Amino acid sequence: MQLEPFATIADRYQVFFFDAFGVLKNYKGLIPGVGDTFAYLREQQKPVYILTNDASRSPQQLAESYWRLGLHDITPDMIISSGMLAREYLQLKVTQGTVAYLGTENSAHYIESAGLRTLSISELTLENIAEVSALVLLDDEGFDWNTDINKAVNLLRRRNIPVIVANTDATYPVSKNRLAIAIGGIADMLESIVGKQFIRFGKPDAQLFMFAYERVQEQLPTISKRDIVMVGDTLRSDILGGNKFGLDTVLALTGNIAAEEAELRIQSTGIIPTYVCESVVI
Amino acid sequence: MQLEPFATIADRYQVFFFDAFGVLKNYKGLIPGVGDTFAYLREQQKPVYILTNDASRSPQQLAESYWRLGLHDITPDMIISSGMLAREYLQLKVTQGTVAYLGTENSAHYIESAGLRTLSISELTLENIAEVSALVLLDDEGFDWNTDINKAVNLLRRRNIPVIVANTDATYPVSKNRLAIAIGGIADMLESIVGKQFIRFGKPDAQLFMFAYERVQEQLPTISKRDIVMVGDTLRSDILGGNKFGLDTVLALTGNIAAEEAELRIQSTGIIPTYVCESVVI
Amino acid sequence: MQLEPFATIADRYQVFFFDAFGVLKNYKGLIPGVGDTFAYLREQQKPVYILTNDASRSPQQLAESYWRLGLHDITPDMIISSGMLAREYLQLKVTQGTVAYLGTENSAHYIESAGLRTLSISELTLENIAEVSALVLLDDEGFDWNTDINKAVNLLRRRNIPVIVANTDATYPVSKNRLAIAIGGIADMLESIVGKQFIRFGKPDAQLFMFAYERVQEQLPTISKRDIVMVGDTLRSDILGGNKFGLDTVLALTGNIAAEEAELRIQSTGIIPTYVCESVVI
Amino acid sequence: MQLEPFATIADRYQVFFFDAFGVLKNYKGLIPGVGDTFAYLREQQKPVYILTNDASRSPQQLAESYWRLGLHDITPDMIISSGMLAREYLQLKVTQGTVAYLGTENSAHYIESAGLRTLSISELTLENIAEVSALVLLDDEGFDWNTDINKAVNLLRRRNIPVIVANTDATYPVSKNRLAIAIGGIADMLESIVGKQFIRFGKPDAQLFMFAYERVQEQLPTISKRDIVMVGDTLRSDILGGNKFGLDTVLALTGNIAAEEAELRIQSTGIIPTYVCESVVI
Repeated sequence: MQLEPFATIADRYQVFFFDAFGVLKNYKGLIPGVGDTFAYLREQQKPVYILTNDASRSPQQLAESYWRLGLHDITPDMIISSGMLAREYLQLKVTQGTVAYLGTENSAHYIESAGLRTLSISELTLENIAEVSALVLLDDEGFDWNTDINKAVNLLRRRNIPVIVANTDATYPVSKNRLAIAIGGIADMLESIVGKQFIRFGKPDAQLFMFAYERVQEQLPTISKRDIVMVGDTLRSDILGGNKFGLDTVLALTGNIAAEEAELRIQSTGIIPTYVCESVVI
Repeated sequence: MQLEPFATIADRYQVFFFDAFGVLKNYKGLIPGVGDTFAYLREQQKPVYILTNDASRSPQQLAESYWRLGLHDITPDMIISSGMLAREYLQLKVTQGTVAYLGTENSAHYIESAGLRTLSISELTLENIAEVSALVLLDDEGFDWNTDINKAVNLLRRRNIPVIVANTDATYPVSKNRLAIAIGGIADMLESIVGKQFIRFGKPDAQLFMFAYERVQEQLPTISKRDIVMVGDTLRSDILGGNKFGLDTVLALTGNIAAEEAELRIQSTGIIPTYVCESVVI
Repeated sequence: MQLEPFATIADRYQVFFFDAFGVLKNYKGLIPGVGDTFAYLREQQKPVYILTNDASRSPQQLAESYWRLGLHDITPDMIISSGMLAREYLQLKVTQGTVAYLGTENSAHYIESAGLRTLSISELTLENIAEVSALVLLDDEGFDWNTDINKAVNLLRRRNIPVIVANTDATYPVSKNRLAIAIGGIADMLESIVGKQFIRFGKPDAQLFMFAYERVQEQLPTISKRDIVMVGDTLRSDILGGNKFGLDTVLALTGNIAAEEAELRIQSTGIIPTYVCESVVI
Repeated sequence: MQLEPFATIADRYQVFFFDAFGVLKNYKGLIPGVGDTFAYLREQQKPVYILTNDASRSPQQLAESYWRLGLHDITPDMIISSGMLAREYLQLKVTQGTVAYLGTENSAHYIESAGLRTLSISELTLENIAEVSALVLLDDEGFDWNTDINKAVNLLRRRNIPVIVANTDATYPVSKNRLAIAIGGIADMLESIVGKQFIRFGKPDAQLFMFAYERVQEQLPTISKRDIVMVGDTLRSDILGGNKFGLDTVLALTGNIAAEEAELRIQSTGIIPTYVCESVVI
């Protein structure tokens, strides 16, 4: 396995899709040098999009989180989050009733901005259960797991409604050595227990890539998939999803996978990035 | 599908293995008529065992729970719980250190009676993590899911120790229309997230049946598997486990499966009881 | 559950996505009345696309198969097959080497038309194995399962190459009461045995819908997802995929699901079509 | 990870359970030195049993296969095969009809010796299908996969009968670098396609260990589980099964797992042997 400098790769593509966590930032803050990379791509007038399995905050809030870290090149319209796909689904498919959710009030933004009434699972009662027309799993915080996951089980036993999972990740890192269970992990448990099929949005699923690709085409109609590269730190979401969508892919070794295990992980999963880079630093 | 009266079946077998919940009792208390059935079997001097995926309480406490419901025929030695298998495992395989657990203090009985030190996951710290030599999942109550399930994930990332699941059930009923997630359901999520193989005890696994069968043979050395019948309300644990162990099986329609869906469930799962009875009432 | 006449639905939408097997045709031939439906939609100048998990034949051959059945309204450009997605993947991502395949020579069309050399797994030898740059699973026929599935296992143990599954279906009907295992079912076994992640194309995955949607937009740029309806006979592919892509959906009871079981299947899977119709006959 | 000499371990235990393939023999024949180990244990009068997921041949034939390799210490009564558990199941649970099977005529021994009529799936017809009272999956050879696996699918759609899997292994090695799919791998595909629950016999399931343990107790009634050690080359069958049954376990590095990957595999699976040995050679 040969490591390539990201600078070489940067010159070969016209459009960049970046994963957020493990590529641009980590639990300590911005990954050093990422600011220079963004400045370089801006100078070259190469569009950048951030594709993130994150439904905990709105694109505006996500962009602001980068500004607070000192990266001002990121604007809300560059952010493509799995929450936006959940919102599009709700807009198209859920036209009435109240949408129950597991997550924080911030995450409920994606339901509210679809023009729908929201109901935290913790407020679900025998009186309002009949109005619930969908359940959206947004974030692992903002509710009491002991009571509210069980409430979700019983809601789904009584009401045959669509369940939307707005973040497919099973875990996320909270420090160098510690993980936390993400709402995608809770979704897997719930789905197995109620035996129903949930609707999942987020990498590696093609819809997130398509959403970003449509934005690219609006801006630069002549761009083809060959001109775009997907950069991520996770084989099963970023690289598998990018590959399947037909993009070239870069595995960046600043997150999930350490340099010494990259080759083994690529071999054992069969998920093969086009390039492997130490980081996206130029 | 033909329903058989339990009385006819009772006369064909010498030893009875009963599931507890859904056969002898439910969320409302003792199933009416069960007392008469136990009296009848006692008169006939036919041994009875209760095989239960329950590690929340000791056999003594489980027996007392029947006494409080008015069924005094049940003694602690008739109860074979999945917690007892977990205890046997700990006795044979974990000879030192401290055993961490998810569950109530009552459930920790099975660890303590194996002569081992216990540690609730909520008390796990950076100081005592090095002493932990096993993790036992006992009960869905007694801990804070938000924090303690995440603590369990990180314990298993740091320490390569055996994880014992003392109850394989994914859910249990708490009222006519409501389920709660059992520790077996939480175990499935944890196992999938940490990617390690857990050790599960409880029906349909053969070890619980073997444990009961050894008790039978001590008491009645000439009894063969043909003389024993397993009675349960759940196809995937009671009936599958009984069948696989080589026993005849009775599906009782007083719990998980309503009369009108029994045939469809047997057909769609391919788990075929020898008999189907409305109840164990004689 | 209320059955709606397809005629009412036909008047509410501008574009129609149809599944093929179980909706337009079955093992006996064309479903009676389908010709009239196509004539009606043609008169109304409403575009029709056929979305099919079929990589056994080219769009041209698939269209001809309808002509032979007497349905001349179907042209190759109306057919969106999972094989076309596999071809697009190969064009974008596999630029050299030889592509090995499991399937008939007909199915190899999708590899050849991507401009790549093909190699039936049966011709794989120790000499040519080093040239193989991808494996594509196309069809359940055209090879000897005993030897060639084992050859595929060992190919994937030696060479870390992408594996593309061009049909996600596990089975297909061959007569009223008989099923055959499709290449998607064989793919699941292979993937589990080699422990690598395959790349699957076909409903319910969004990419097939996106492919059809792009065709619609080229022809009718003002059409939105609200104007399109997906019609299928299978909950897990047609209806789940259509729903997730944001389309309204019709379950047609002429294939996989009989009228008397529709409600139970919708309830037990949680996959909810917008409408249920006896057939697409107008 | 510390390697221990097998001689030290041999002196600590009274009874030895050995896996066959990868411990005693491999694709080239007997593992060198195994004869001395058996002679040593015989001198010490320590009973030895061979626990094998093999239903392709009778214990007599399996013993003879060792004699042909020059190991005459192995007698048929030392062999505990998963086929024997399948036979016990059939004897106890299938009292009439014909038992259909996938496998060679040799493997049908386990059905015949249960006193039942056998029918190779290849001979299944519309006439005799109604007599079939069980299906047993015995061996990956002896039938045509293309036609006979599909016949098995359709048999199980028509007849709700128990399906017994007499070998849980998904693959077996045929040479240094080549695997073949075992009947357990085919069983997983079939089970997933027909959606029914099969009954599996073989390590890591407790029943095989119990069968051997009962033989030990007949011969040496005072032996406890603490006196027995299970020796195998596979974490997921031999070591997991031995651990769960309460035995100490030895991972021998002469089969599935090479010395350099042992630590990583133990770490990543969480299946922890009591000892790791280069081989069972003394």
